[in-house]
Parts: sequence; C-alpha cells; structure tokens
Amino acid sequence: MTPQPNPQAGAAVKAADRAHVFHSWSAQGLIDPLAVAGAEGSYFWDYDGNRYLDFTSGLVFTNIGYQHPKVVAAIQEQAGKMTTFAPAFAVESRSEAARLIAERTPGDLDKIFFTNGGAEAVENAVRMARLHTGRTKVMSAYRSYHGATSAAINLTGDPRRWPSDTASAGVVHFWGPYLYRSPFHSETEQQECERALQHLEDTIVFEGPATIAAIVLETIPGTAGIMTPPPGYLAGVRALCDRHGIVFVLDEVMAGFGRTGKWFAADHFDVTPDLLTFAKGVNSGYVPLGGVAISAEIAETFATRPYPGGLTYSGHPLACAAAVATITAMEDEDIVGQAARLGSDILGPALAELAERHPSVGEVRGTGAFWALELVRNRETREPLVPYNASGEANAPMAAFGAAAKKNGLWPFINMNRTHVVPPCNITEAEAKEGLAALDEALTVADEHTAQ
Amino acid sequence: MTPQPNPQAGAAVKAADRAHVFHSWSAQGLIDPLAVAGAEGSYFWDYDGNRYLDFTSGLVFTNIGYQHPKVVAAIQEQAGKMTTFAPAFAVESRSEAARLIAERTPGDLDKIFFTNGGAEAVENAVRMARLHTGRTKVMSAYRSYHGATSAAINLTGDPRRWPSDTASAGVVHFWGPYLYRSPFHSETEQQECERALQHLEDTIVFEGPATIAAIVLETIPGTAGIMTPPPGYLAGVRALCDRHGIVFVLDEVMAGFGRTGKWFAADHFDVTPDLLTFAKGVNSGYVPLGGVAISAEIAETFATRPYPGGLTYSGHPLACAAAVATITAMEDEDIVGQAARLGSDILGPALAELAERHPSVGEVRGTGAFWALELVRNRETREPLVPYNASGEANAPMAAFGAAAKKNGLWPFINMNRTHVVPPCNITEAEAKEGLAALDEALTVADEHTAQ
Repeated sequence: MTPQPNPQAGAAVKAADRAHVFHSWSAQGLIDPLAVAGAEGSYFWDYDGNRYLDFTSGLVFTNIGYQHPKVVAAIQEQAGKMTTFAPAFAVESRSEAARLIAERTPGDLDKIFFTNGGAEAVENAVRMARLHTGRTKVMSAYRSYHGATSAAINLTGDPRRWPSDTASAGVVHFWGPYLYRSPFHSETEQQECERALQHLEDTIVFEGPATIAAIVLETIPGTAGIMTPPPGYLAGVRALCDRHGIVFVLDEVMAGFGRTGKWFAADHFDVTPDLLTFAKGVNSGYVPLGGVAISAEIAETFATRPYPGGLTYSGHPLACAAAVATITAMEDEDIVGQAARLGSDILGPALAELAERHPSVGEVRGTGAFWALELVRNRETREPLVPYNASGEANAPMAAFGAAAKKNGLWPFINMNRTHVVPPCNITEAEAKEGLAALDEALTVADEHTAQ
Repeated sequence: MTPQPNPQAGAAVKAADRAHVFHSWSAQGLIDPLAVAGAEGSYFWDYDGNRYLDFTSGLVFTNIGYQHPKVVAAIQEQAGKMTTFAPAFAVESRSEAARLIAERTPGDLDKIFFTNGGAEAVENAVRMARLHTGRTKVMSAYRSYHGATSAAINLTGDPRRWPSDTASAGVVHFWGPYLYRSPFHSETEQQECERALQHLEDTIVFEGPATIAAIVLETIPGTAGIMTPPPGYLAGVRALCDRHGIVFVLDEVMAGFGRTGKWFAADHFDVTPDLLTFAKGVNSGYVPLGGVAISAEIAETFATRPYPGGLTYSGHPLACAAAVATITAMEDEDIVGQAARLGSDILGPALAELAERHPSVGEVRGTGAFWALELVRNRETREPLVPYNASGEANAPMAAFGAAAKKNGLWPFINMNRTHVVPPCNITEAEAKEGLAALDEALTVADEHTAQ
C-alpha cells in the first residue's frame, strides 16, 4: 500500500508549497506542512516512507476513508460524461443526489439547495430563515463552529470568530448543555437539560422572541468537543422554536452522513429541524459539496417569491455524482451500521478503559465514529491540560501528546485540551486497535503533565 | 456529438429535480428547468434531441468549453491517485496549481489562498484587507457582482443584494466609469475617467480615508455589463489606494483566465492590485475552485500572525489537478490568444456590423470572449429595452429575444436589457459565425420593441 520513498519529489512539492500556497488558519512563516504522497482507506503516507493511521478523517470528512474504489470510479465515469454544468438546469447526477439525500434527511426536509461546502450552507440557511420569518437576529451557541464566511464565522462560538467578528452581525450567543463543565452548575444530565433550556428560554425572552429569525445548533457540537446533548434538550429547543415562530437550524456538516452511527445525528433524538446543513460526509469530501435540506413550509415561502441566493457551482454534476456513489456505497456496505458498531463495540469500551488507566483523561464521550477525550491536569478540579486557546509554551503538553502519537504512526485530531477520535466510519477493527494502542502510548506523555 | 433523444430519461431527471432540487435565484414553483443530457465543446443538448450553441459558457466559466479531453483525463487520473486531502498538508496538485497561477498573476501576487469559488475568495480578500489595515470599511461599485455569501453580497451593486442587505456591513458603494450611461454626464472617455476618479476621491475623503480597508472592483465589470474602464482609470484608483493606505482588490472571478484575451484583465491596464480574486476560468468550473492571489506585503502581514480563515476543501487536490490541466491546455493550445483573436477578428467586427443593422442595439462593447450588447428602445434617448430589474410583463421584450435565440439553437446570456456574448474562449470561427447568425435573427425580434 505504501509506495517507495521518494524524498526528492517530496522536497519539490514542499518547496512549491512554501513558495506559493497560502495556508488557512496559519502564520505562513511558522508552519512546516507535511508533504503527503498518497492515501488509501484509513491511512496516508509521506514521501519519506512514513505511514500514518488517520484518526482525523482529514478534517472529519472522509467518512468512507480515502480512495473508496466505487466512488473513485463514479467520479471518473462522470468526468467522462459531464464534469460541470450550470445550476439553472436539471442534470441527472444533481437530481439523483438530491433524491438520495432527501430520502435520508429527517421528516419533511425534502428540498435540497446545494452549495460547495459547509460555510455556504450555513450562510444560505440563515438567509432562508431571515426571509421566511422577516426577522434578523440569529442565536447560536458558544462552543460551536459553523464556517468562515462572514455570517458563518459570526455564528461560530470559538476563538476563530474573534478576528472576523462583526459586532453588528445580528448574532446572539448562548450556552448549550455540557455537563462535564456545566455552565449551569448542574450535577445530573436531567438537571443540565432543564437548566440549559431555561437559560435558552430566558435569553429568547430578553432578546425579544419576535426579533429572532433562527436558532442554529450543531446537533452534536463537533470541533468544540463532541458534547452529546442530554435527552430532551433538542426536543426542548424544537418546542421553544415552535412556540416563538423561530426557524430551527441543525448544522450537521460534521455530524451528518453516518459519523454518529446514524445517517444524521438528529435521528438519535427524534427531532426534525426546519433546515439542516450538510457537507463533508455527503461525499466524503471527494469533490467539494455542501447543502441545505429544507422543510416543506420554508420551501413554500419561495414557491412564488424568488429565493435570492446562489452560486456558480450549486449542484455541481461531478460533486453530485460523488455524493450518489458515496451514499450508495454507504448503503451497500452498511457503513452507517459499521460506525454504530465501531462506537458501541470497539471505541466506546476501549476509550473507557484508557480513561481508567490514564490520569490525563478527564472524560471520554461520543458515539459512532465521533469521540472526544478531554485531557486534564487534574481529574478532581477538571483543570484542562492546557488553557483555553493556548499557543506556544502554554500549549506544550498537547504538542508533546501530538508528537508522541505521530511518532507511533497515528495522526491525531487535536483541539485545545482535547483529542478527538474521528476515524473513517469503515475503519477495520484491527486498524482501530492499532490506533488505540498508539493513543495509549501517547497518553502516557500527556500523563506526565498531570498534577494530582 | 448529439446522442439519440431519450425523452423518458429526461422526464425522470426533470421529475426528481422538481421534487428535490431547490434552485438558486428562483421562485421554485415558477421555473421549468431544461433537462440537459450532455455537453461538449461549445454545445450542449437536451433529452429531446435539441442542441444549443452555448454563448454563456455556463455562468461564464467554461473558458475551455465542455469536456476538454486533456482536463477530463487529468481529473480521472487524479481521482485514481488522490481525490481529496486536508488543507494543512503539502500535496502535489495543490503546489503545482499555486505555482502555475502565481506565475501568471500580475506583479508580486505570488501567494495563493484557495477557496471553493468566487464568493469565498471575495470574503477572504476582504478579511485580509481588514486585518492588514486594521480598518473596517470597504468600498465597491454600483453595477457589480461579487458573490452571495454575507460579505460578498453586501459588496455587490445590483438588485441581488437587496434581500440580503445588512446596512451595517461596512460597505460604501460608489459609481464607476460607464460612458454610455455616464453617472458624471461625461462626453468623452477621458472626461469619464477624470470625473469617475474625482467622484471616487471625493467619496474617500468624505468617508474618511483612514476608515477604509479596501476598494474592491471587478477589473472589467462582468454581469453588470462588461464596461471596460477608460485608459487611466484603474491606474488612478491604484494611486488613490497608495496615497491613503487602502488595499486594492481586483475581482477577476469572471474576467480572469483568458476571458478578455489576456491571462488577467488587469494585464490590459498594466495595473497590479494588492489582492486578486479568481474562480470560474481557473479550471473552467470542472471542479469547484476559487482563490485569492496575495501580494508580498499582505502575505508578510500573516508571516508570524496566523491568518484567521479557512475551509475544509481549501486547495482541494482534484480541483487543483483540474486547474493544472486547464492552465497547461490553455498554454499548449494558446487559448488566451484564441480569445484575443476571437474578439479582434470575429466578434468585434461582426457585432459592430449587427449594431449597424439592428436599431435595438444601443452599444456593443467588450474584448476577447467578453462582449455586451446593450439593447434599447431608442438609440437617441438610450432608453433600455426593458426597465432596470424588470420582471414579468415589463420584461417581455427581453424574454421574446431570448426565446427567439433558443429557437434558433443559441443559448444566450441575458441580464436586464443586455445580452452578453461570452462563449468559450476556444469556440471555432464556424461556431461563432453560427451563433452570430442566430443572434442576428433574434435581434430582429428585439427590433420590434424599439420605438424610434
């Protein structure tokens, strides 16, 4: 699977990258991007012969792993037939992708507006909600990520928002449930649920219910920490939205398409939003694609009134063909079921066992192929292993953990004081166990930074 | 080239589209999207055996036409090798695309930040300008289009902005040069240039130069009407930006990559902006891709300070491979030269001749494969054939013109009272003449609505 090392080719790729590629979320002079030569399934490799098991699924998007042969073949076939076509027309792969998605989205979310990715999906969901309600304000949670275009980054509730913050964007942030670090001083899931809903209701009342167009939530917050909401929370938000005529938007860009062991994370909670955003897993990122699934009621708003939004590549035929092939492969190979069993039979028990042995692990939480380990200096006080938004020396313990994982052939997902275990949904049991062993070793490095 | 008709397949594609695809910029219940079966070169065809010559290049993006065999082959090869990979790494097609683009962008615009399309490119250019200057306000022109995400749509100067307008977005609109309908009552190009620059300078002074982060302009405004700026205008804007420390952003999403008969429209004016946005032509839309080319000075701002923006699919390997193949094919086949000759030898003379014969043609303007015909009720008063932003009955003359073109096998680009002649840059002389003949006939329908 790993080809011969070719350091010279790697050096050329790296040199052109450093000369000409401006990287996202980075200080250009301080980064040293690894040159990657290839990828297959759950692995990728560099030009020096090092192979890594990918516990990140890229940026949590390769839900079917790299280079799935059926999806590669479908892209090649579609490329030979119709690579691209403008959005105002009906084309086969676009129709078919919309049909397959609509069949799987919850409730009556049967109309699909396609975008190129998650941020544009959120942008358009907000636009639909504002026009549908005639209201401006949008509420979203601290500890969230919704994308980096203007409306999307303002909704985001993490430090990536700060440099692009527009105080007048019409966004109000509130606190969601998170029992391990409860904003509401709760001691049980039920208490956390009740208090979080009370907090949300109070905030709605004081903001003015008739001013609020939408509440936008990740069904299970992703990069912010995979905090599965307690039973009843999302149903409670749904009820608040219904009571006040607020559009309920669930952002499933990361959690959707099998990641949690169901097609959509909303399926765990039996809740249907008015709008559902998706991207990433819809075609495992093989070709850029995202979108919004739209309820019958909101679609009706734009039945005779033009919807004022669009993009050149909306419903791109190649991207849609990749979605058709991905959804079909997920269905044929029961990849959603694989993710569920990965969570219940392998990752869940194994991570719980790691938590028992490693004092640096404060909490393990998740489901399916979607897990977070919260690393702490002290299990009693729950002091994070590194401070919020740490960099440089202050972040050294997490950097050391990450370096140890990579040395053991595991590419870990790291955000602040957490590592997320978010491999492809179809990672094999043997591969998962190999990654867990490397994680075990890396956690001993994290343990050295605990103080209890 | 045109396969056998297959109305049954077309009906199925259309049925799934109407059931599940939510179309951009449209009232969902009032549209009747044509089901397209295939496309090649400058043509596409439906399921009923009708073939159309595409004078729109999709949405002005298929600069090399549909299904260019070298680009299709490159996509197929890259799909088999590495369809996707996360943006934080160096990968071959990403490095190579950045190098090929940087080699062609004007001046020192040598760092490439990749996005999925034009709107995100504009979003990120604005973010870079704001952080580079520490200022908030951005100036852009009426009669412009910059995309449909929040910051991009607020910059836009046409009615598509209105439903998404955020009064507090920090955008100030001014008037650009447009001699045919001069905002400055000019009678010559030179006068228009001087007065437009004076207007811009006055607006800068009254807005407060130290509050303005950027001026964003389409080098040659596209959808708004292909108004080539008079000699000296862009150099004048450049000088105003330099005097006041304002970042100069040229949006070449539509005009770039050969469309005007040069690699970039800025090359016609010998002007180098600080940031240049691109998309569409970079890979003819075969895989969604856009980006920002960044000057050395602005790149330096983010050498040690992290750039706070990104996307999951930044520098997508498949999209970048399509860009590498497209640029290489354009170079090998001199497609930029083809566009230049198309404008100077074929479209320019032929459209001028049509204007002479058809009283509905008020003005013909353009260059390369980038032309606009302004249709008028009266050549003396220059009253547009239909009012600004007309719909329904008020728009009937343009609708009749469009229907006549389609009946003659020509798919025309129509915006308000204009038709744009924006075919692939490599359309053959015979094809161009076929399209011009159909246009000639359709203009006789427009002529019927003139009153002079």
